[in-house]
Amino acid sequence: MLVVMRQEASADAIDRVVTTIESMGYEARPIPGKQRTAVGLIGNDGRVDSARLEGLEGVLEVIAVSHPYKQVSREWRSEDTVVTLPNGTRIGGREIAVMAGPCAVESEEQIVGIARTLRAMGATILRGGAFKPRTSPYSFQGLGEEGLILLARAREATGMAIVTEALDREGLDLVVEYADIIQIGARNMQNYPLLRMAGQSEKPVLLKRGMSATIKELLLAAEYLLAEGNSQVILCERGVRSFDTHTRNLLDLTSIPVVQALSHLPIIADPSHGTGIRSKVTPMARAAVAAGADGLMVEVHPHPEMALSDGAQSLFPEQFEELMAQIRVISQALDRELVAPLDAPGVDDTSAVPKSAEVA
Amino acid sequence: MLVVMRQEASADAIDRVVTTIESMGYEARPIPGKQRTAVGLIGNDGRVDSARLEGLEGVLEVIAVSHPYKQVSREWRSEDTVVTLPNGTRIGGREIAVMAGPCAVESEEQIVGIARTLRAMGATILRGGAFKPRTSPYSFQGLGEEGLILLARAREATGMAIVTEALDREGLDLVVEYADIIQIGARNMQNYPLLRMAGQSEKPVLLKRGMSATIKELLLAAEYLLAEGNSQVILCERGVRSFDTHTRNLLDLTSIPVVQALSHLPIIADPSHGTGIRSKVTPMARAAVAAGADGLMVEVHPHPEMALSDGAQSLFPEQFEELMAQIRVISQALDRELVAPLDAPGVDDTSAVPKSAEVA
Amino acid sequence: MLVVMRQEASADAIDRVVTTIESMGYEARPIPGKQRTAVGLIGNDGRVDSARLEGLEGVLEVIAVSHPYKQVSREWRSEDTVVTLPNGTRIGGREIAVMAGPCAVESEEQIVGIARTLRAMGATILRGGAFKPRTSPYSFQGLGEEGLILLARAREATGMAIVTEALDREGLDLVVEYADIIQIGARNMQNYPLLRMAGQSEKPVLLKRGMSATIKELLLAAEYLLAEGNSQVILCERGVRSFDTHTRNLLDLTSIPVVQALSHLPIIADPSHGTGIRSKVTPMARAAVAAGADGLMVEVHPHPEMALSDGAQSLFPEQFEELMAQIRVISQALDRELVAPLDAPGVDDTSAVPKSAEVA
Amino acid sequence: MLVVMRQEASADAIDRVVTTIESMGYEARPIPGKQRTAVGLIGNDGRVDSARLEGLEGVLEVIAVSHPYKQVSREWRSEDTVVTLPNGTRIGGREIAVMAGPCAVESEEQIVGIARTLRAMGATILRGGAFKPRTSPYSFQGLGEEGLILLARAREATGMAIVTEALDREGLDLVVEYADIIQIGARNMQNYPLLRMAGQSEKPVLLKRGMSATIKELLLAAEYLLAEGNSQVILCERGVRSFDTHTRNLLDLTSIPVVQALSHLPIIADPSHGTGIRSKVTPMARAAVAAGADGLMVEVHPHPEMALSDGAQSLFPEQFEELMAQIRVISQALDRELVAPLDAPGVDDTSAVPKSAEVA
Repeated sequence: MLVVMRQEASADAIDRVVTTIESMGYEARPIPGKQRTAVGLIGNDGRVDSARLEGLEGVLEVIAVSHPYKQVSREWRSEDTVVTLPNGTRIGGREIAVMAGPCAVESEEQIVGIARTLRAMGATILRGGAFKPRTSPYSFQGLGEEGLILLARAREATGMAIVTEALDREGLDLVVEYADIIQIGARNMQNYPLLRMAGQSEKPVLLKRGMSATIKELLLAAEYLLAEGNSQVILCERGVRSFDTHTRNLLDLTSIPVVQALSHLPIIADPSHGTGIRSKVTPMARAAVAAGADGLMVEVHPHPEMALSDGAQSLFPEQFEELMAQIRVISQALDRELVAPLDAPGVDDTSAVPKSAEVA
Repeated sequence: MLVVMRQEASADAIDRVVTTIESMGYEARPIPGKQRTAVGLIGNDGRVDSARLEGLEGVLEVIAVSHPYKQVSREWRSEDTVVTLPNGTRIGGREIAVMAGPCAVESEEQIVGIARTLRAMGATILRGGAFKPRTSPYSFQGLGEEGLILLARAREATGMAIVTEALDREGLDLVVEYADIIQIGARNMQNYPLLRMAGQSEKPVLLKRGMSATIKELLLAAEYLLAEGNSQVILCERGVRSFDTHTRNLLDLTSIPVVQALSHLPIIADPSHGTGIRSKVTPMARAAVAAGADGLMVEVHPHPEMALSDGAQSLFPEQFEELMAQIRVISQALDRELVAPLDAPGVDDTSAVPKSAEVA
Repeated sequence: MLVVMRQEASADAIDRVVTTIESMGYEARPIPGKQRTAVGLIGNDGRVDSARLEGLEGVLEVIAVSHPYKQVSREWRSEDTVVTLPNGTRIGGREIAVMAGPCAVESEEQIVGIARTLRAMGATILRGGAFKPRTSPYSFQGLGEEGLILLARAREATGMAIVTEALDREGLDLVVEYADIIQIGARNMQNYPLLRMAGQSEKPVLLKRGMSATIKELLLAAEYLLAEGNSQVILCERGVRSFDTHTRNLLDLTSIPVVQALSHLPIIADPSHGTGIRSKVTPMARAAVAAGADGLMVEVHPHPEMALSDGAQSLFPEQFEELMAQIRVISQALDRELVAPLDAPGVDDTSAVPKSAEVA
Repeated sequence: MLVVMRQEASADAIDRVVTTIESMGYEARPIPGKQRTAVGLIGNDGRVDSARLEGLEGVLEVIAVSHPYKQVSREWRSEDTVVTLPNGTRIGGREIAVMAGPCAVESEEQIVGIARTLRAMGATILRGGAFKPRTSPYSFQGLGEEGLILLARAREATGMAIVTEALDREGLDLVVEYADIIQIGARNMQNYPLLRMAGQSEKPVLLKRGMSATIKELLLAAEYLLAEGNSQVILCERGVRSFDTHTRNLLDLTSIPVVQALSHLPIIADPSHGTGIRSKVTPMARAAVAAGADGLMVEVHPHPEMALSDGAQSLFPEQFEELMAQIRVISQALDRELVAPLDAPGVDDTSAVPKSAEVA
């Protein structure tokens, strides 16, 4: 940490900075320059509160040199974290994982049907909301535990792993019980009690970037999870707030290589929430893979025009199939490949796979 | 709601929009124009999910004409909501209320001492965090219930009302027990389970605008509180994310007259978090009052340079005193006045008021 | 400037940074820390291009410690710059100057009439566009030189000083000929050839902040003017881009105290463009004065509903009169006062002042 | 255009909206709804100034239904515009065009050398700045006409087409004389006099999106060019302002499919300015192609660490070669291909191609 003094700062002011740093338990090193003096704080362990220094007389600004996060950083752990799911899907290695499914679980027919369709097309992880954070209190809020039970049935029927969102302690306990990955949504990225609980669970966590979170804040939110002992963390870029209204959010794909340089954690992209518009999902899903994403989360609905939420951003199944074909090609350009499709289910299961309804 | 069709949309596509609207239970009214047709949806009760229409063939865009919030709107209730606290302070009427205090409760000496100082200077509401949402897991997280007990002692000693933040169910139950106003912080503005719980309590709620929340989203978050039966809601502008790094946030004072036109709820401003820099707090506090804010929330610390959090944005007591004098003048320009200071406490209390230490 | 090295940077990499700095003509000072080494660049005269250092092996980031602007900074000149106009109005001292008038000059009757009204209400500077930068090529683009001639007639009739925008070399030559202040609009804040020309003229320049310009960029744009020899520069905050659509822009009033701390140049606010909505102009004009602005630029039109441009953000004359009364009170809170009204014009002029038409 | 009335708007207020619309020469159609009335404006030719309606009593908001741009829209011209350069490169069709070169032209050796290298690697268009818009007046501002002469020599030596930026009338005349594509930079996207001049020239124009321009504003800026008769326009996404400081700008790749849906004009991406960091250029260049960009503009410098400007974002030649290989694969996923490399130059030319220096 570097405390930059004003040009006109007195020797007394500089001394006070030095003694304040020392009283905080660190070493201070004044660096006189041509125009002004700066004082280096040596030994920053990430716990220094710069506010104490910013407030001192004669201080122009305090510049962080170390990053405030520790365990999520590449400097803490240089090799990539790979999260492995019960069905064998690995996230964070050479393979690219695909999570797909409807915004919300609506019925057994809907979720089991679409799961079979998606599995057949190569997805190995099923998404679907049981607890939905909705901007309006009057919108559909999800089926709750009933939705989780239906997700578990879809897993049974297809072998896909399940990812679904938790909003509070009660929901988290249920999600841990039924699902394979706990999703922490964008609106809860800085819900610290929820992060601590998820950090204490033994399930992998998918942590979505907040709507206006900097990458530093995203990594610090993940640090809450690792600080509680859970290192099975997957980050997710899902678009940030911007000034243009053509899309719901601005999908910040540069965050992918930026995060990969700073952290060992895998990062995927959600182009469905990232754009909010069906016709933009496929181009941006392709772009995310080309930018180096370790996976995708894509909304697919058997009948988007009938969806209870987010229908306008859900792909039709045949669009998803085409997307899978395209990203298979793109992944070669990066010397990567998609996670292998799940083995064909047993005879009984196969017979149960609906033929054309979901695909048409 | 208006469904705008593409120029080349077929008659069939327009028909499908009409029948979809009707199947949702509303009336559809096609409006043929020179270049294109639009279809009006009549009878929108705020529950229409535009996504079902956006996804239909031939639809260019769906434009919301009604607002999605109801009970918070001026159209629902035209007269101003006034929140009255146990100590008589009224928020939302002609008077301007001032909440002041340290970022975090640190000790009895600190909080009771500063409360006495602030009361003497005219503040009638004491702020102080017991549960602190911190970006880093390694920062000071607040004293918890101990902090609430100390706040209650400061109330006893001064008669000031208490406002403090809750982060989760456990904390909320305690805050309801000890404080006069429940604060929902910016990071939790869209924590819907927390909003529902606060909406079910009988204490007034101070709801801070999220870091990148639109005003519509702020009002919809407040709608969660009113929908649960709690209409004692105070909104708070505390700065939004922007691209300049000179200040911590960009204090959006225009939100004050905008909210006052759209809603009957009172709105105050927090220039401490809104700027993050002590020397900018006073100008922006003055500006907030001039813009029409119904109150202020300001961080004041007896010794900012020793504060355990946010010291760099905390005023010295004498700066706060000067601010109070300035906003007394400014409020006259709007034909308003500050909430009257609390009556002098009894003889015993007065004798206990420290003389100069906190004020100097 | 501080070059922060990666933790794992080799001694060779550090050496290369040192020799590169030296080859650029500066002194290099390595500062070994607990976790990493940083290398200070001593003697930065504001011309160092950090890119050459950022690209070197082992460099984590390059942090600017000196500011890149010189002559606009308070460190270069500590006392406030005061711009004095031919009619005696001073901008940047204790007084608060008010510029008012229609968005565009439309006719002699309009501009002379409104000028008389505004002068009577206390404004001493008349604004009015002759060259209009319009987002659409099909919108009204201003009367050109004819508009400048009409502005000059309004000055003759009222004694008000004239401020109007220039878009290119031809327009600038004309504006210099007819007006008292050259306005450089937000869209041209980084039009460097235009800035150079304005810097070479001998008229004061009003430089508006670009729609997404940081304060540093605003100051650097002003530096172009001072670098050419023109130190009569007034800065203007007029709102920045943000994500909420309730207002046209987000008026960033905190920029006022921020600029006043960094620079000796005066700064005013334009709440008309800053909000884009008539009913928000008055609150934000009051707020700007309360925040410490050295002046205001406000759009007033005799008949806003008939204005050829920006009618929705123009005040009615009687609204402007009320605003003047309010800011007179507010300025007292800051121990300032409005620029004194211009002396009553001679008998002949007075007889020419229309009675009620413009005020009603 | 739809004028939405407040719930409490009187019949008189509605009538006044109707008569105002009619006085503007359009047809008005009131649409009574359950909660409020809206008035449709029929026959909007893109010239309606909504401000006149927004200011009327009882009006809640005015919603644009038609887009304000005309000739750039897909509704005006449904087939893609393809810009063909003298050397046969086509931009906007099935092929993907690559523009590459240094930020600034520095010397004949530099520009001719790198041109030969880039041509050999498959680029067919050479970029290089002769007139540089620099944030600081003290930075290197380009070689001016000398730079244009050197670019012309590089074209002679390699057959590559030349794209370079113009900042003002004088520069534009020179750029038209020497170059094949006139670049209008982000800072000048709304420099309307410059746009008009470029629109009157007969050279293709590369129009970069402004730092905080909406897509509508970008298209309206292009409309200025088409309105003057120049339809050879290429748009360029180069990153927008955002709140995170990890990258110089936020490359908004979603703008690519959004623009392609709204307009027939080709759009390319500039990942060099879009990220500002060398290590992020390649991932984002790949992503742009995957998102559907019609081309790329990439900074490549023979010795980035010695570059006079923007060295930190310039690729090394061998990095560019690898990028070309990767996007060749990616383009197949979209059923597209790169523009074919230029034919080998004649014997004399070949002999002049330096062997390894530039590539190593």
